[in-house]
Amino acid sequence: MTSAIIVAAGKGTRMGPSVDKIFLEVAGQPLVVHTWRRFDSSRWIDEIILVVRDGLQSSFQDLASTSRFTKPFQLVAGGPERQDSVWNGLLAVSPQSEIVVIQDAARPCTTDRLIGATVEAARETGAAVAAQRVTDTIKESSDGTVIRQTLDRTRLWAVQTPQTFRVALIRRALAAAREKGLSLTDDTAACEFIGAPVRLVQSQTPNPKATSPADLPYLDLLLRSDPCNSIVGPPA
Amino acid sequence: MTSAIIVAAGKGTRMGPSVDKIFLEVAGQPLVVHTWRRFDSSRWIDEIILVVRDGLQSSFQDLASTSRFTKPFQLVAGGPERQDSVWNGLLAVSPQSEIVVIQDAARPCTTDRLIGATVEAARETGAAVAAQRVTDTIKESSDGTVIRQTLDRTRLWAVQTPQTFRVALIRRALAAAREKGLSLTDDTAACEFIGAPVRLVQSQTPNPKATSPADLPYLDLLLRSDPCNSIVGPPA
Repeated sequence: MTSAIIVAAGKGTRMGPSVDKIFLEVAGQPLVVHTWRRFDSSRWIDEIILVVRDGLQSSFQDLASTSRFTKPFQLVAGGPERQDSVWNGLLAVSPQSEIVVIQDAARPCTTDRLIGATVEAARETGAAVAAQRVTDTIKESSDGTVIRQTLDRTRLWAVQTPQTFRVALIRRALAAAREKGLSLTDDTAACEFIGAPVRLVQSQTPNPKATSPADLPYLDLLLRSDPCNSIVGPPA
Repeated sequence: MTSAIIVAAGKGTRMGPSVDKIFLEVAGQPLVVHTWRRFDSSRWIDEIILVVRDGLQSSFQDLASTSRFTKPFQLVAGGPERQDSVWNGLLAVSPQSEIVVIQDAARPCTTDRLIGATVEAARETGAAVAAQRVTDTIKESSDGTVIRQTLDRTRLWAVQTPQTFRVALIRRALAAAREKGLSLTDDTAACEFIGAPVRLVQSQTPNPKATSPADLPYLDLLLRSDPCNSIVGPPA
């Protein structure tokens, strides 16, 4: 059995102080609905856990009804940091689940094929993450004003979600990171921390995240032009 | 006096073997025309040197006539690698020029404000480059299949063009790199090689480069929505 955790409890401060980006309308629907539908209709996923800001549970219930989602889901309150939210989500995963797929709510273009590829890689290796080779030249700067050095971009990958794990592994990894009080930018970093290997799974199509208002027109374009998109309504 | 070198001699292999990406039509015009117009209409630029594939000079002459460009320009044949093309461009820069702005032809959304900011920073420091903070989590992998480590993204910048220099400095830096037979991904790397400081100038608006066919719809969107764009015809 495979569970999905959709992390929808972010503060999204780069969108401005009062905007919860995942409710912004893109290609005719709130951002989070696009993401949720990808998992609701995925043949790889058996149950969905949405980690939401406490107090917003009824808004998400309404979205599920309006969108006619059919897959079992639970709503779980998020924590102060992303890794606390993921932790809370993990506590709600069914005891029968062997694999968990963790997804940013603000990343709505993830394909079913990509979900499946990370699930298969995680079954094999324990942990896997959607990623793209870095195409920009990347420089390191200590102070943000002058370049220190050029990095070798052939070794660099930008990681996305889904990040997919054997349930027992990610629990152990996050518990170890929590015990040390580490602050992580993503969940695979917890595996790196305990020395567990993480597989890179190359995204075949654009899979961007909404981080600033400037990203929205591009997401809109991708969602409107994607034959798997959700504008036409819920899957039959 | 300030010169611009637009590097338009790339092979662009990621677009497919037979496609010269800079002639692809985006927002109603060939990609290179958008880029060229940014510099033709820039108040920071006094002359333009286009480095083109040998044999294509007359095509570029035609583009200049059709687009009614008004700023003086020269066409120079490119070399086997990007740095050879830049070198050839530098040989054509007027003796009166103190500053040279180097631009990828495939990066059509560069604003006049960004050009100006790199010129001012290069006057001060000698070298400057348009850049954006990396927002993705970046992982290093030795083999492209398993993660080696997470990099500290607060120190990482993705560099773009314009890359702007005091003419004497970039000549000295590229000469030193050529003498050592170094292969460079960008021109600021030559300055790093000789220990000259390079300033980062943060891009305020999206400034992407066309590298694969998947990039074209986004560039089209940006160029069509940009009030400084060139669809409406040449500047008055």
